[in-house]
Amino acid sequence: MKGKLYGIGTGPGDPELLTIKAIDTIQKCGVIAVPKTGNGEKTAFAIIEKYLDGKQLLECRFSMERDIEKRKETRQIAAADIIEFLDDGKNVGFVTLGDPTTYSTYMYVHEIIVSKGYDAEIIPGITSYSAAAAALGIALCVGEETLTIIGRIENIDDLPDVPGNKVIMKSGENLMLVLNKLKERGYGDRTKIVCRATMEGQRLYNSIEEYEKSPETGYFTTLIVK
Amino acid sequence: MKGKLYGIGTGPGDPELLTIKAIDTIQKCGVIAVPKTGNGEKTAFAIIEKYLDGKQLLECRFSMERDIEKRKETRQIAAADIIEFLDDGKNVGFVTLGDPTTYSTYMYVHEIIVSKGYDAEIIPGITSYSAAAAALGIALCVGEETLTIIGRIENIDDLPDVPGNKVIMKSGENLMLVLNKLKERGYGDRTKIVCRATMEGQRLYNSIEEYEKSPETGYFTTLIVK
Repeated sequence: MKGKLYGIGTGPGDPELLTIKAIDTIQKCGVIAVPKTGNGEKTAFAIIEKYLDGKQLLECRFSMERDIEKRKETRQIAAADIIEFLDDGKNVGFVTLGDPTTYSTYMYVHEIIVSKGYDAEIIPGITSYSAAAAALGIALCVGEETLTIIGRIENIDDLPDVPGNKVIMKSGENLMLVLNKLKERGYGDRTKIVCRATMEGQRLYNSIEEYEKSPETGYFTTLIVK
Repeated sequence: MKGKLYGIGTGPGDPELLTIKAIDTIQKCGVIAVPKTGNGEKTAFAIIEKYLDGKQLLECRFSMERDIEKRKETRQIAAADIIEFLDDGKNVGFVTLGDPTTYSTYMYVHEIIVSKGYDAEIIPGITSYSAAAAALGIALCVGEETLTIIGRIENIDDLPDVPGNKVIMKSGENLMLVLNKLKERGYGDRTKIVCRATMEGQRLYNSIEEYEKSPETGYFTTLIVK
């Protein structure tokens, strides 16, 4: 019998934000696949570390280069590595920071493996933006408000000026450009910033002005614009 | 010493999708507040029922009428009821289906209580739309895609025709109108429908056409439009 692939959301960082289902699922997997992308991989690993006793680890390296062919190639290699274990009858748990269906490399691997006829299941996780709003003590959306989640912005001019509330994730090295654009558009006081939500060293800012006085950079920065 | 208010997300329905933090927080609350809105309240209660031994229950009734003053009045009453317990030094856990920061009545109560100087903390939960995407085995968003979350639609003509992927929640009695509008706009095949995500009787549909052949109605319906 073939093994099954599980895409497991670890939540935003605090190991207490793991679900019971995520822990149970890790426990029934003989192999845990941990993505290596240069960003955040250690965090997903640290969240689940205490559940890994006796399990085999599989490191999946993903290219984050602009070259889409290189990216696809690394996804294919990761899928092939996982399939070896599935063919061997082992369940593989692929852990992913936050939620697997929200801007996660896992979904590419999931699609490849499902298309080859293997069984796979996704265990949802708490997103970083829900955790960021909770830390700030504010709503993402109420009543008839809409909420737009904006992911990686390659070109700052593409930052959509959509109505309603907005979450901006993964600004990375574009963060200062994004903040300047938001100020230009008059959102300075309506932009809240959370760095490292629920992780050690979490920082909260209630406006862009506040952020500029004592900025914290890094990959794990979430903006909430209301 | 005054008690503290906790807004606790129970996740979408499956009790296994509770986080460790949600369970720990329930355990340190002497009083559990359960919202009664006519929709879904029993579900939040059922998810946490097995953790309620020996706890005092507080039922909070919220008006869902159009009259905004009536709504505000019931929120004030709920806040006052909770404050009685806080003044008595008891911690109160207010449970809410899904995530407290996402279309939840909890946030109104949170704001009232925080504005009166009490301490309150939000424990994030898995949203129904993350769970719906996981059940379907599809991504909500990857790469540079945006995702717009659309809540209650009072007037069907207000259904926003925004670019990118969309989640439509809480269509309620407007569901058929929303589906017709989506078909009109050419989204029939790109609309996936999940009823009762992760709950008993969960149903998945891969298109509006599929849904129309064997529709399931009810409050817990999530649409994902790609």
